[in-house]
Amino acid sequence: MKIVVLKFGGTSVGSTDRIKKVSKIITSYIKKKYKVIVAPSAMKGVTNDLIRKSKEISNNFISDEYDVLVSSGEQMSCSLIAGSLNHLGYKSRSWLGWQVPILTEGGFSKARIKYIYKKNIMKYLKSGGIPIVAGFQGINSNSRITTIGRGGTDASAIMLARFFNAEKCIIYTDVEGVYTTDPNTIKKAKKIKVISYEEMLEMASLGAKVMQPHSIQDARLNRIDIDVRSSFKQTSGTLITKRKNILSNKIIRGVSFTKNDAKITLVGVKDRPGVAASIFEPLYINSINVDMVVQNISSNGRETDLTFTIKSEDSVKTEKLLKKNKKINFRKIIVDKKVSKVSIIGVGMITTPGVTYRMFNALAKKNINIIVISTSEIKISVLLNRRDLNKAVNILHKEFRLEK
Amino acid sequence: MKIVVLKFGGTSVGSTDRIKKVSKIITSYIKKKYKVIVAPSAMKGVTNDLIRKSKEISNNFISDEYDVLVSSGEQMSCSLIAGSLNHLGYKSRSWLGWQVPILTEGGFSKARIKYIYKKNIMKYLKSGGIPIVAGFQGINSNSRITTIGRGGTDASAIMLARFFNAEKCIIYTDVEGVYTTDPNTIKKAKKIKVISYEEMLEMASLGAKVMQPHSIQDARLNRIDIDVRSSFKQTSGTLITKRKNILSNKIIRGVSFTKNDAKITLVGVKDRPGVAASIFEPLYINSINVDMVVQNISSNGRETDLTFTIKSEDSVKTEKLLKKNKKINFRKIIVDKKVSKVSIIGVGMITTPGVTYRMFNALAKKNINIIVISTSEIKISVLLNRRDLNKAVNILHKEFRLEK
Repeated sequence: MKIVVLKFGGTSVGSTDRIKKVSKIITSYIKKKYKVIVAPSAMKGVTNDLIRKSKEISNNFISDEYDVLVSSGEQMSCSLIAGSLNHLGYKSRSWLGWQVPILTEGGFSKARIKYIYKKNIMKYLKSGGIPIVAGFQGINSNSRITTIGRGGTDASAIMLARFFNAEKCIIYTDVEGVYTTDPNTIKKAKKIKVISYEEMLEMASLGAKVMQPHSIQDARLNRIDIDVRSSFKQTSGTLITKRKNILSNKIIRGVSFTKNDAKITLVGVKDRPGVAASIFEPLYINSINVDMVVQNISSNGRETDLTFTIKSEDSVKTEKLLKKNKKINFRKIIVDKKVSKVSIIGVGMITTPGVTYRMFNALAKKNINIIVISTSEIKISVLLNRRDLNKAVNILHKEFRLEK
Repeated sequence: MKIVVLKFGGTSVGSTDRIKKVSKIITSYIKKKYKVIVAPSAMKGVTNDLIRKSKEISNNFISDEYDVLVSSGEQMSCSLIAGSLNHLGYKSRSWLGWQVPILTEGGFSKARIKYIYKKNIMKYLKSGGIPIVAGFQGINSNSRITTIGRGGTDASAIMLARFFNAEKCIIYTDVEGVYTTDPNTIKKAKKIKVISYEEMLEMASLGAKVMQPHSIQDARLNRIDIDVRSSFKQTSGTLITKRKNILSNKIIRGVSFTKNDAKITLVGVKDRPGVAASIFEPLYINSINVDMVVQNISSNGRETDLTFTIKSEDSVKTEKLLKKNKKINFRKIIVDKKVSKVSIIGVGMITTPGVTYRMFNALAKKNINIIVISTSEIKISVLLNRRDLNKAVNILHKEFRLEK
């Protein structure tokens, strides 16, 4: 049985008109003799409207009821798609999280899928039906509705593909695929035909908004090929797959960047064991994500300067937390909200010497100052002044011939 | 355990602000040491919006998915109310149809509640929790979502009151109770303090829009006292109860009326056995409700004139059906769309002679012509020209001293 899982994002099912269009996409796979499992998001705007209502009731709306509330969005889109397919003469029905059932663990609003019971849907597929499985939702062991915190409906689709041994998991969205860099910023950005999970992970967590990192990680761990493509245009998309499936001589796959970083420098921190932990613990507790970290070795061995980056929106809160932190001593705090991070990503850099040099050299030639550097096996990131951002992305895109 | 079931209609939970107000009503019963079960409708506008979406997809939207779609409305209002009560410091959770479970029979979109499993909710009530049970929904024996066709959330509330042996079922709505006649039309209309199921049934099916007849019938069969009152104003409402609970010397309880009737007369119908059935069968099949019927005995025994009333909106369709009906012969068809029906209702008329006379006499004095008459044990209805409607309602309201 050739099974394909089709995920449709909120914009793809954003109106009843869109749902009719999406129905045609679904039936095109039936015509190609696939067994199709559909996992839709809520219609665009619906989830936000529900969240707004919960906030009007309480700024601290209880999470178990929050999940009941927001999961109704996918219930709507599921039934509308199933209704549309019936209207076209196909056998189709909705399956809510509790009906499958999809068992989750890990608490409300941030649940993870633990197990998907296959029996009923398998029988339905064999009978020629098209199951529309509500994305983003499941139930816990107490039969209460939970929602998938990380990756939402993408995660649902990937887990469906895993449990049903699907040949493919296709993520239909409002963009045509993954690009070498942001096509809205850089005109010469090119759509990437194929990319490894690892590269995509770096692209996603560094700013490309096509998929959430956790979903890509789910796909990587379960070896599920993901095809990201547009539900609006009939064009090929981007395949996210295992490295060994990729035959390509590109050293660098893409250039990603963030716009809203802030740099915090603590000057003259008393340097003793555990001081870094004392600084970062309250930030972690307050869900403030620390990205790049640099510590200068102090000349006298007693003091050090510590620099790190966070999201701009967290800078006020971070400054407050640092100032009232009794466990640390420092002379001065400097906050710079006008920085950005640019990264080049590619598995090819593992085997190709000189990539770092080429990157720094290209930036230096344009007089772009590098503030902080951080690297991993398959990416190099640099922090720079925001005013240099566009220039930097352009020059790196060109340097590594991504427009070709 | 003193249990009370509180039902809130769509307008009562029509905004998050209203939901906060309704939460205060709920907690006022907790403060009076009641155990409270809440059954809310969907927020005003939500169900209509969902129905509109289904129609945009298909004019013949499959009913099993329609039920999945529209039931999401009560899912929202339930979780918002439970969230609001939690915010106020009370223990509360939503219970969807499948979670209770509420078992229904009788097909999609027109299901009836067959059984409500009490165990879990009972335990929850004993632990001090406030269960918010989604109205209007249940599941069938295949674990698919169904919706209650007749009476909707009123029916849910009444069945909850029955299965949980509630002391009271209170229907919170946007009117203050049941009136002697339409207060929008007749200034002197009075709120009725107490009314029997039977009288209320006649009032409801004859035009008073407070509750659907089927819900009242459910309450009557299960001997559930219903208190209809406003969620907007703190005033006493109307109690609907058994006849023997009512100590009142009112002969007539109220005057109800319809505005949009049409009268059809078939002149010169060939009079043979089964002709009435031949006339009404195609109307029944097409869901056209025939109300009053009068047949004049023919002078020669071969022909007859048949007059009956229907809703105005059905008159074009009815005329077509009659004209193409091969099973009957008649000389002429007369359609009068300008008629109205006025009824007086009261269990007191069973034991009081002269009510019919007083009604007809009062109308005659004002030169109001009666076209058709129909009676039951506790009501007398007359059909008259629509231009006489207001005058007739006023004079009858006065004749039977309903303003006192």
